[in-house]
Amino acid sequence: MKNSSQRQAAVRNFLSERNIGAFIIPSGDNHFGEYFQDYFACRKWVSGFTGSAGTLVITQKGSALWTDSRYFVQALSELEGSDITLMKMKTEGTPTIAAWLKEQLSESGVVAVDGNLFSKADYESLESSLCPLKLAITDDPFNAIWKDRPNLRFNKIFSLSTSVTGESTSVKLKRIRLQLPENEDYVYFLSTCDDIAWLCNLRGSDIPYNPLFASYIAITKERALLFVNNNVVDEGVRKELEKEGVELMSYELAGDYLLNLGKSVRLIASPDKISVSLYEKARSGGAAFTPDVIRGGVTGSLKAVKNKTEQEGFRMAMKNDAVAWVKFMIYLESEIKKRPNGITEFELAGKIAEFRAQSPDYRGESFSPIVAYGANAALPHYSPSEENQVFIDNKGFLLVDTGAQYLYGTTDTTRTFAIGDLSYEQKCDYTFVLKGMINLSKAVFPKGTRGSSLDMLARGPLCSAGKMYMHGTGHGVGHYLCVHEGPQSIRMEENPVELMPGMVTSNEPAVYVKDSYGIRTENLILCKEHEENTFGTFYSFETLTLVPIDTRAVIVSLLSDDEVEWLNGYHKMVCETISPLLDSDCQKWLAARCACIG
Amino acid sequence: MKNSSQRQAAVRNFLSERNIGAFIIPSGDNHFGEYFQDYFACRKWVSGFTGSAGTLVITQKGSALWTDSRYFVQALSELEGSDITLMKMKTEGTPTIAAWLKEQLSESGVVAVDGNLFSKADYESLESSLCPLKLAITDDPFNAIWKDRPNLRFNKIFSLSTSVTGESTSVKLKRIRLQLPENEDYVYFLSTCDDIAWLCNLRGSDIPYNPLFASYIAITKERALLFVNNNVVDEGVRKELEKEGVELMSYELAGDYLLNLGKSVRLIASPDKISVSLYEKARSGGAAFTPDVIRGGVTGSLKAVKNKTEQEGFRMAMKNDAVAWVKFMIYLESEIKKRPNGITEFELAGKIAEFRAQSPDYRGESFSPIVAYGANAALPHYSPSEENQVFIDNKGFLLVDTGAQYLYGTTDTTRTFAIGDLSYEQKCDYTFVLKGMINLSKAVFPKGTRGSSLDMLARGPLCSAGKMYMHGTGHGVGHYLCVHEGPQSIRMEENPVELMPGMVTSNEPAVYVKDSYGIRTENLILCKEHEENTFGTFYSFETLTLVPIDTRAVIVSLLSDDEVEWLNGYHKMVCETISPLLDSDCQKWLAARCACIG
Repeated sequence: MKNSSQRQAAVRNFLSERNIGAFIIPSGDNHFGEYFQDYFACRKWVSGFTGSAGTLVITQKGSALWTDSRYFVQALSELEGSDITLMKMKTEGTPTIAAWLKEQLSESGVVAVDGNLFSKADYESLESSLCPLKLAITDDPFNAIWKDRPNLRFNKIFSLSTSVTGESTSVKLKRIRLQLPENEDYVYFLSTCDDIAWLCNLRGSDIPYNPLFASYIAITKERALLFVNNNVVDEGVRKELEKEGVELMSYELAGDYLLNLGKSVRLIASPDKISVSLYEKARSGGAAFTPDVIRGGVTGSLKAVKNKTEQEGFRMAMKNDAVAWVKFMIYLESEIKKRPNGITEFELAGKIAEFRAQSPDYRGESFSPIVAYGANAALPHYSPSEENQVFIDNKGFLLVDTGAQYLYGTTDTTRTFAIGDLSYEQKCDYTFVLKGMINLSKAVFPKGTRGSSLDMLARGPLCSAGKMYMHGTGHGVGHYLCVHEGPQSIRMEENPVELMPGMVTSNEPAVYVKDSYGIRTENLILCKEHEENTFGTFYSFETLTLVPIDTRAVIVSLLSDDEVEWLNGYHKMVCETISPLLDSDCQKWLAARCACIG
Repeated sequence: MKNSSQRQAAVRNFLSERNIGAFIIPSGDNHFGEYFQDYFACRKWVSGFTGSAGTLVITQKGSALWTDSRYFVQALSELEGSDITLMKMKTEGTPTIAAWLKEQLSESGVVAVDGNLFSKADYESLESSLCPLKLAITDDPFNAIWKDRPNLRFNKIFSLSTSVTGESTSVKLKRIRLQLPENEDYVYFLSTCDDIAWLCNLRGSDIPYNPLFASYIAITKERALLFVNNNVVDEGVRKELEKEGVELMSYELAGDYLLNLGKSVRLIASPDKISVSLYEKARSGGAAFTPDVIRGGVTGSLKAVKNKTEQEGFRMAMKNDAVAWVKFMIYLESEIKKRPNGITEFELAGKIAEFRAQSPDYRGESFSPIVAYGANAALPHYSPSEENQVFIDNKGFLLVDTGAQYLYGTTDTTRTFAIGDLSYEQKCDYTFVLKGMINLSKAVFPKGTRGSSLDMLARGPLCSAGKMYMHGTGHGVGHYLCVHEGPQSIRMEENPVELMPGMVTSNEPAVYVKDSYGIRTENLILCKEHEENTFGTFYSFETLTLVPIDTRAVIVSLLSDDEVEWLNGYHKMVCETISPLLDSDCQKWLAARCACIG
């Protein structure tokens, strides 16, 4: 980027004024979520690199940007002319940030970061890896040097009734306090906006896709102080919160509040979800610190288990979503016939959003839609762009992975469509992915099972064919909240969180054949009680998603009788549930798509 | 037990002479293996309790014995008249040893243990849980108070040629040293007799079932000192060892050796496999300590991966074993006909050993044989006894779980026989166990997979029927060594060890219906390379065990086509491999038992 050198120079100026050797600019904000406002896009502003993951490091001698393999090509092109070295992560010969800095600086060198953007845990781990270099905290230099920096957005907050959330804030507070020390004065502090939104039964719109608002909350035995911008809460919402035991404070005052806790109070927070700046404020004021060591945090663990009302909300959201998908699929089929090689991925991405918007309860997309044709689908994180439109031919696969926010639930569905001729290998792959998806859907497992024990059920059929996908099988999903929500997961890697009745997780085995095609089939599944007997307690899954699975690519003989039965049962349920919501033409189409196989 | 009070009094006398408040007597010896010599059976001698797991604690006021649910009934009866309180572990209201001792002793109380019987890790964990009580190390009090204490046995050691082990000791030493610090003087010290036996290509017979000999080894950059009893090594073996770079030292001198290491040497050992006494000796002599943090230890991890020669040895052992099993199964069938309700579990346990002993390479049983009829099989650890003989009727299941040591491999096989009428539920359970066993046998999985990712393949079919087994699915197996060998396992619980080509593991799903019946089907499986391609490296299993599986209890319609195909393929392999080793009558029987189903 042509302006980059100038912007780096401004950062260097800031550093030399303070006698600092290097500055590290991460991706992210002070709330440690998946998305952040443009205000925080400093790394992009300086470097020109637009990818979602990347860390820029600036010294007086030079600059370097670390990113992962998804972005190597893009970064190389975007960094052109900037004099910034691309550091390809997990590639042989690439130094770590700490190793590189030790080469660049003298032993007494000081490295600095904006302490609002680093969690306590990340800061301490960086500090120890940098040794003997010193790590220091500075203010945000970009307020001064980024002249047209966007403003922070603080949009209106709206509240959800307990008919949607199933539980009042005061009851949630009570359940949280039950997990905190009984005999000690504490402040349990949250910076994670999704936890706060869940707890307070509020939603916002400060960032894309996740219905969140910038906030902190401090919970003591007696009080709950919600730190939000002064202009975002209406009088009605304020009164509701007050009734639930939540008082409002200015967003800007969270730091001062922690500074003034004093010595007799203990700060409890997740070390990876509180900024080192806020942590240091509390400590410098004298407060002791206890880490919230529960994976996902005390609040996050409660949030992950959806209550009956939330579960019902998911089911309603799935019905809305399925109607939109059916309309989309009919549109897709007819347009491909009408305009062979005339429709684009980008157009289709807009179309499914359009069909969803016909529901009055639709509140937007839950993530950036993936509509990927042919070889594009071999990139798991591909997103169609307006600038670079790709036309859809009448052969191979089209992969569509999209999700929505409804007033009472979040969806995330992937279907891969056989829109034309397929090779035998493509059909095999499609069938193996489906087998894995079905195996996991059907799982019955003892209480205490972790997701890592179930991953192989979904991955195994592909492995038997010598194929694999390099990502997890399932992520948690929020209730009209973040589509990627912890703490549970279903993946190869160990995650100590046990699957519990009420958790909603995705089920998305896949296969990616480089430069050729990609297949993914994804439902959301709800963990539920299955059976309790002398052998113990068993759980299983209810499939929430209600979208027909394209059977045209299935090689029926590769499915077991049980798998065929599951698939036919699924389609029967889809048809019975969705048909009443469709007009008669759509009903006919759906009945045909849901016909039994085998 | 009637003598117990007297023996406890002798221990109390020892304690009061030394101003010690309590003494903890564990089960085990100074080598931390599964079996130990009678010399170390002090807990049994004092308490009368004969179970394999239990810890006795004696204070001036009273005594208590902690054991697990397997032994509650037995312990209650064996402790009768001893005044020892039975502490039922994992039962509500049962205090931990530390909690109980804190109640029994004053705050300044001292608890003591024989430092040879506690690992450094266990000692330190006990020490911290006992605080503010002090923990101290004493000598073994039983040399003085146990008048007719058995002698320590040191039997002759014999060596195995590289045609059996596949690798010389000098090469093994080289591979071990490659994992130790290059730039520092170290003593890598092993107390684990199976690791030493593997490394030195030696075997012994000091304890039951495991062909081991009491020993330590100290490995430095230049030398390897094997500490064994002076009388157990013949001149020929001594010379062989010398050629391989192993020098002999007296078993008794291991402690002195560590004491004299001095300050410039670093002791490297597994904290859970070195006695706190030996560790303290090295430390008091000035040596620094580095824990061997590899799960299973540096040597144990190498030992777990069987080389091609060892794998071939397993295959030979399996052939011998299968011949004995076939003879046993024929004997069982004909005797049941001849003597309905006339044969006993105990007789059958002897019989299978007898058939095995017909092989010149047989070296004994690899564990205490389980022959369990009817409800007895519902106890996973049941062993038939001579005193309490159980006759076998012509109905239900007979479970036989036995294994052998051969000169070139170790076996461990369970078969459950339908020896008469079965209920529908019994047949379902048998089929679900078999499905699980087959699923795991057929698994294909990526490099890097841990056993916990595969357990559900074996456990799942039973869970779907609302049933479970409360033990792991698979344990590692040694090569003419311990039938229970680490570090890998296949179980629900997380174990970070990745399955590697060359590892031999059991595959033994099961179901236990209390007071009614038990079913277990167990093969040994060898992890091997399966495929390497652009998606990565995949592993799978070779089934080593060659014993027909009773198909009379199978409900074929519950098996998938793939499972039927696997079972028929397995029986074809068994028949083709074993038939040539049998006489014609046995061949006929085997062919019938290996007939295709479905």
